[in-house]
Amino acid sequence: MTATGLSPATVATLTNELLDVGVLVESRFEDSGGGRPRARLAVNPERGRLIGVDIAETYVHVELFDLAFGVLDARERHLDRTDNDPADVVAHIAAEVDAVLAARAVPRGSVLGVGVSLPGQVDRPGGVSVYAPNWNWHDVPFRSLLGDRVDLPVYVDNPLRASAVAELWFGAGRGSASLVVVTVGTGVGAGIAIDDAVYRGVTNSAGEWGHSCIVLDGRLCRCGSRGCVEAYVGAPGIIQTLRELDAASDIPRPDDETATIDALAGALAEGDPLAAKVATDTSRYLGAALGNLINIVNPDTVVLGGWVMARLGDHLLPKIRAATTQHALPQPLRAVHWRLCALPHNPVSVGAAALALEGFLSSVRPPVHSAQST
Amino acid sequence: MTATGLSPATVATLTNELLDVGVLVESRFEDSGGGRPRARLAVNPERGRLIGVDIAETYVHVELFDLAFGVLDARERHLDRTDNDPADVVAHIAAEVDAVLAARAVPRGSVLGVGVSLPGQVDRPGGVSVYAPNWNWHDVPFRSLLGDRVDLPVYVDNPLRASAVAELWFGAGRGSASLVVVTVGTGVGAGIAIDDAVYRGVTNSAGEWGHSCIVLDGRLCRCGSRGCVEAYVGAPGIIQTLRELDAASDIPRPDDETATIDALAGALAEGDPLAAKVATDTSRYLGAALGNLINIVNPDTVVLGGWVMARLGDHLLPKIRAATTQHALPQPLRAVHWRLCALPHNPVSVGAAALALEGFLSSVRPPVHSAQST
Repeated sequence: MTATGLSPATVATLTNELLDVGVLVESRFEDSGGGRPRARLAVNPERGRLIGVDIAETYVHVELFDLAFGVLDARERHLDRTDNDPADVVAHIAAEVDAVLAARAVPRGSVLGVGVSLPGQVDRPGGVSVYAPNWNWHDVPFRSLLGDRVDLPVYVDNPLRASAVAELWFGAGRGSASLVVVTVGTGVGAGIAIDDAVYRGVTNSAGEWGHSCIVLDGRLCRCGSRGCVEAYVGAPGIIQTLRELDAASDIPRPDDETATIDALAGALAEGDPLAAKVATDTSRYLGAALGNLINIVNPDTVVLGGWVMARLGDHLLPKIRAATTQHALPQPLRAVHWRLCALPHNPVSVGAAALALEGFLSSVRPPVHSAQST
Repeated sequence: MTATGLSPATVATLTNELLDVGVLVESRFEDSGGGRPRARLAVNPERGRLIGVDIAETYVHVELFDLAFGVLDARERHLDRTDNDPADVVAHIAAEVDAVLAARAVPRGSVLGVGVSLPGQVDRPGGVSVYAPNWNWHDVPFRSLLGDRVDLPVYVDNPLRASAVAELWFGAGRGSASLVVVTVGTGVGAGIAIDDAVYRGVTNSAGEWGHSCIVLDGRLCRCGSRGCVEAYVGAPGIIQTLRELDAASDIPRPDDETATIDALAGALAEGDPLAAKVATDTSRYLGAALGNLINIVNPDTVVLGGWVMARLGDHLLPKIRAATTQHALPQPLRAVHWRLCALPHNPVSVGAAALALEGFLSSVRPPVHSAQST
């Protein structure tokens, strides 16, 4: 209770509500040292099921969880970069949702919600993909499209929010007063959490750091602007750096950025000098870009995640930290704890499932009245 | 009360405490339409005096306020750029504090506090100037230096925080859910306020946007890095742009950046083509830099202030807005209300005095217990 900053009365109300809906159960009573025996509360993992979906430009990842966030099943389907018609993407997800439910014989009625992380800007209350730059989606009514297909409550947000929630609940964000969770994949962005709450900005698009400018008039970005962070350190940007350094290199795998980043990681492990130069250049861009975030947000924790960081992070982190000292001011830089994402499984689908649980709980109880939540 | 988001009980407690210390008075009772007569509360401007001090690289500005923030006296002293020894700066401030008190025959005992805005990074609880890049101050124990000289309670912070508080209390920040107050002077930075509270980051240095990179390997900045926003749009950066465009221009005034910016404003008003080109280039840099802030913070309000904006803002604002569309994503950009700072007097000294009042109130009452303040 102390850790939440909530008043005793608020905690008691919340606890009773969670007991009422069966999410919490009283597992046993224990002696509290002479006073009243204290109820020991536990999450009831069997109260229902959650589904978390991570949609990226190159895959759809679907996970089935119990309410203690134990993974019951996980499925992943490769997407071609051109395979991005909303109806097709919805069909892929619906098929994988059906598959995870069938694999564990889970009745549809026990699923409390499907949380979906969509790339780009998402209107969360409206359930709409406002703009997904890499797919050129505009105002796609995703929640209703998917909800109609899977006949389950659907909650949408984006990977920046999902990753931040995953780190807050289960990862390096626990206890952080000001957290930045950087996602480096095909797209690039940052989830921000302040005082244990995801910071969304006024239109749920805070943290679009991937589209902040570090090289005025620099590389064209898929958002239409120039010099964006993403154009240098997203997977296509890293591959462009590689090709600019050596157009004849055999590291790139044609039309497969995942395999190319894997090949780059392999070459780095073998001490390949071209790969080392790509790592140095990428770290130089990230150093400037992370310096900007540190100077503006002044966080205590920076987590580096996303599928590119999962593959290259061990090689890049020392170089990134060195490059950041060229840009971040000394005082805020000293305050930063650096972490590579250490969450098992797929943090975005975990976070998406956590957002679905939040959505379910909001649907069964009125919001808590506190200054934080109003 | 509704506007504060605080509970009725919290508001009642706060109100009683403010009545107890005489900051609020019950001015009269009014009929509330059949129910209990309601007390009409007013700030008691005579309960004490506040002093707000804005120290910049080129001046010391000292204002004396009553508790309703009416200005009783204001003094400004020019500082040479080399006149930055801490003891000398303290002596300048102490002399002006003595002058404003003498001018209005204010007894020292009625002053509730002196709020001082210092450039750079400030350790607020410790009262220390951690780092002022433009003066090369490191770990200067400013509060004790000034407190010993003026024999009054001293509260220190920096102009980003002071400007944000001034806009929150008296300006465009009232009612904003996410506010960015940009200061463009000799130094450059941004104050951020979220849900009516200044966002400080974990070491009170959030908003150091002036030292975020927009031109990798670009102009050397006085912080030691390259390509920082400040190196392009702070007064010395604007003057550098002017000289790079035309080394023989007669707009620059030797060794006087204030007079040079004044001359540039005059040349702009007269349609001078060189001045127009400087305005376009400066706006292009600001467009990239503000696009970064908008993409990362997703605010509803951006206020442009600082002494350079006070002089050039009317000319620059349309160009800045146009340039920002090249960088900010469309959705967060649409959410922004743009404002030039419209506060009378010196917003930094007003904000510094408000921070002193906050400090006084904290010293006479325990902190309110709410999720927001813990």
